Amino acid sequence: MTEFGFIDNIKKAFADIPAHGFEGIGDDCAVLPLGDGTSLVFTTDVLVEGVHFLRTGASAAEIGRKSLAVNLSDVAAMGAQPVASLLSLALSEDAAGEWAAEFMNGYRELSGRYGVPLVGGDTSRSGSGVTVNVTAIGRVRSECVKRRSAARTGDIVAVGGRLGASAEGLRDILAGRYDTEYAAIHKNPTPQIAEGVWLGSRTEVHAMMDLSDGLASDLGHILKVSGVGAVVDTERIPAVTDLHTAVCGGEDYKLLFTVSRDDFGRLASDFREKFGYEPFAVGEIVASEECSVEWRENNKRITPDWHGFSHF
Amino acid sequence: MTEFGFIDNIKKAFADIPAHGFEGIGDDCAVLPLGDGTSLVFTTDVLVEGVHFLRTGASAAEIGRKSLAVNLSDVAAMGAQPVASLLSLALSEDAAGEWAAEFMNGYRELSGRYGVPLVGGDTSRSGSGVTVNVTAIGRVRSECVKRRSAARTGDIVAVGGRLGASAEGLRDILAGRYDTEYAAIHKNPTPQIAEGVWLGSRTEVHAMMDLSDGLASDLGHILKVSGVGAVVDTERIPAVTDLHTAVCGGEDYKLLFTVSRDDFGRLASDFREKFGYEPFAVGEIVASEECSVEWRENNKRITPDWHGFSHF
Repeated sequence: MTEFGFIDNIKKAFADIPAHGFEGIGDDCAVLPLGDGTSLVFTTDVLVEGVHFLRTGASAAEIGRKSLAVNLSDVAAMGAQPVASLLSLALSEDAAGEWAAEFMNGYRELSGRYGVPLVGGDTSRSGSGVTVNVTAIGRVRSECVKRRSAARTGDIVAVGGRLGASAEGLRDILAGRYDTEYAAIHKNPTPQIAEGVWLGSRTEVHAMMDLSDGLASDLGHILKVSGVGAVVDTERIPAVTDLHTAVCGGEDYKLLFTVSRDDFGRLASDFREKFGYEPFAVGEIVASEECSVEWRENNKRITPDWHGFSHF
Repeated sequence: MTEFGFIDNIKKAFADIPAHGFEGIGDDCAVLPLGDGTSLVFTTDVLVEGVHFLRTGASAAEIGRKSLAVNLSDVAAMGAQPVASLLSLALSEDAAGEWAAEFMNGYRELSGRYGVPLVGGDTSRSGSGVTVNVTAIGRVRSECVKRRSAARTGDIVAVGGRLGASAEGLRDILAGRYDTEYAAIHKNPTPQIAEGVWLGSRTEVHAMMDLSDGLASDLGHILKVSGVGAVVDTERIPAVTDLHTAVCGGEDYKLLFTVSRDDFGRLASDFREKFGYEPFAVGEIVASEECSVEWRENNKRITPDWHGFSHF
């Protein structure tokens, strides 16, 4: 069963439990409107040694930073400001001492950089390997919450930066090249937090999420829940290296968002003024029954076999 | 380093990060007052195969129920009503199919019993074994939040039920006796949720927490953060089997709380009327520089070497 099949089954199984005001599963975060015009958002991510990281391939501090960064990216993808995290650590005996202390230094470093307090946690030993779980909480004015389901026909599809560097870095690490420029990017993802909060405040931005599994896969999620399709011009995709890595590689943690076509130019220029670089328009939302991506190369439809990165 | 040494270090390291309104680490849950007279509370717990459960010793559904139950117990120990959970599952290949589906059935069953929606989650494969992480969220009127730090000299120390059954059951399971009465209690903890919410609403209840590591250890936490001591009469401890198991055994998930002495009788009788059974008074809070427990047997001080259960 894929992760998404599993999630669909779970949604059905839990559908008749009272929601207590929560908007549940299916977006980067769960949303709880508080009644004072703000909402809290919640996300949780598990990182498993040998699956999401190698202790030989990254320092403990890097793994600590990354564990938090990927969760903050989910918060920012809702347009929300991260306000707290909770951390669980299951540690094998050889990781319980110095490794754990270094992990916490990295976690603390990123928490400080983004002003996110650690408000709770749990530790356990584990039989083998390290498992990390982070829950991140964000806060946002309710009218600024951005959902995957809000893409509209005619929107520009945009990404917040160049794609594929992280996957390129993973390739380096798996080949034993731990110290390349791309490996460093893979090990030190920079979540677009200020960008997410700023895009959240802009009404011309409709759908938003973060790119963790690759454009091919993640754009598909927006299309499915928005009930629309997209046309993407491959020559506009800002690939760091090759197109396939940019489209299918995981863990870029750049924002993927859709914007009213008429407003995109102004938004992009305001974005550049604020952040010093521009987002990239890669395509357009179109009406489509299949809710799928049509890929184009020089205005000609192509049918590549592109799938995103699957964790499970 | 013990879990508590680790936590003390973390508290210091994170002390200068803005709290965003959160009361942080050190209680069963983190507390976020919302400004409308209510607070949210947050807790997270990791359960590791081979440490917290054995797949051979408990059914997948039992492990699913227990994973949620221990978190709801932490929420109730703050006086709060559980309102949501987030679940992360790291699954070895042999657990990813039928086992995971049965786990979710158990998790769903307990979620339904207590009306707690599942609002988010994550799944991953794992190299070996199953790791479960649950984050639970509760809501409570802010004046009803019960903290570990609120015990006062003269309070009665009370427990919400008989102690030691779970530890007795763990002993059975480790000896291969999976189907005893105590093993069933160990595998199917019943968090005192309605009791916690009700005790939260009573102003004569001061400190509260849930008993996960045994009375000897957990009462020590209340004393330390409240800056008081306690005298406990061992003959009043409601041991299911022997005294040592009752005092040092983990995972009873009964509430431990302190109550103004003059009000205890009335509270206990109201409790009995509401829940059909009475809490047990086991001792009294006293002024003490050492913030430790004085154990007594027939009014004579004894000095047993009692420590709680340590997960780490």
